[in-house]
Amino acid sequence: MSYLGVGVSPGTVPVYHGSSLKVFDRRVRVAELVLRCLICGLALIGAVLIATDTQVKEIFTVRKKARFTDMKALVFLVASNGIAASYSLVQVGRCTLSMIRGSVLFNKPLAWAVFSGDQLMAYLSLAAVAAATQSALFAKFGQNELQWMNICSLYGKFCNQVGEGIAASFILSITMIVLSGISAFSLFRLYGENKSKGNAR
Amino acid sequence: MSYLGVGVSPGTVPVYHGSSLKVFDRRVRVAELVLRCLICGLALIGAVLIATDTQVKEIFTVRKKARFTDMKALVFLVASNGIAASYSLVQVGRCTLSMIRGSVLFNKPLAWAVFSGDQLMAYLSLAAVAAATQSALFAKFGQNELQWMNICSLYGKFCNQVGEGIAASFILSITMIVLSGISAFSLFRLYGENKSKGNAR
Repeated sequence: MSYLGVGVSPGTVPVYHGSSLKVFDRRVRVAELVLRCLICGLALIGAVLIATDTQVKEIFTVRKKARFTDMKALVFLVASNGIAASYSLVQVGRCTLSMIRGSVLFNKPLAWAVFSGDQLMAYLSLAAVAAATQSALFAKFGQNELQWMNICSLYGKFCNQVGEGIAASFILSITMIVLSGISAFSLFRLYGENKSKGNAR
Repeated sequence: MSYLGVGVSPGTVPVYHGSSLKVFDRRVRVAELVLRCLICGLALIGAVLIATDTQVKEIFTVRKKARFTDMKALVFLVASNGIAASYSLVQVGRCTLSMIRGSVLFNKPLAWAVFSGDQLMAYLSLAAVAAATQSALFAKFGQNELQWMNICSLYGKFCNQVGEGIAASFILSITMIVLSGISAFSLFRLYGENKSKGNAR
């Protein structure tokens, strides 16, 4: 009944046959740890690049200051990166603890929690990057049909730094998507039942 | 060695023990079929609502026509919905064929193809919806700091219909996310090895 998750204790973990499986599992865990550290770093870089970005311009006698708070999509991206960094930090702690203790730590409730968190973070960061990219495109090229002027000709340095922040966040999203694939693998393999090679057709 | 996918033929499928597992598997397949039909319908509704939306206004003596092509994010959303509809139609065919033939049809290459396609579609449709929503928010509320005026006070009917199209596309994205979870389950359960309840610590 393990396929349905009925009659399987939360502490149930797969038993490995042969050292190659242990090696494979260790590699998966190392890859997960590296990716989570990478995400944490990229999230911080992206958030800092955007949040610290300002540029002052004097247009005739009017002094204008461009800040990331002028665009809600950038505020959303900074918030999303902050959440991603905090989440990844917690997960790095969990992964490290798991590796130090040498335990597999893949019981179903934990695997479900990690899977759900990773999925949520992947979709959240992608949505934030997409919205910020859309805003950046308007800022860069304007929208003549709607008489929205481009502002990057005025605030060039500001726009470049925002672009770097969005690029870092984009790489973070892709990494998060790969990681959510790994956590899906870690969860759903617990539901497998490859007892024989028969065909159920 | 099935955990690593080594020594397992592509046609390997799980063998089910007890009728409850067959019932569960049938339910998963029915849910998948229903969700794919829903996605196909929503994608078409969203694309048609946005692509057919026009509004003509006369401002003084100038005649202006609002179309979805005025905003690249809407063009991207219509394209993404078109891809989602075509993809879902193909998948509905595969699911139906699978149910008529009564076969599980979950060999690893096919499961990998379905998983990859579903993941790609989920992320694509979410990114398209996020970008279109960002554009719609600019259109609805403008951005005073950048002197981008809101255009929905002028093209109210046009904006409402676009909003409905985005709403349909948003529900489609959520459905696609749920579906990509199901296909991840269908793929990665093939890598499971719950042979015993021992603890590998």
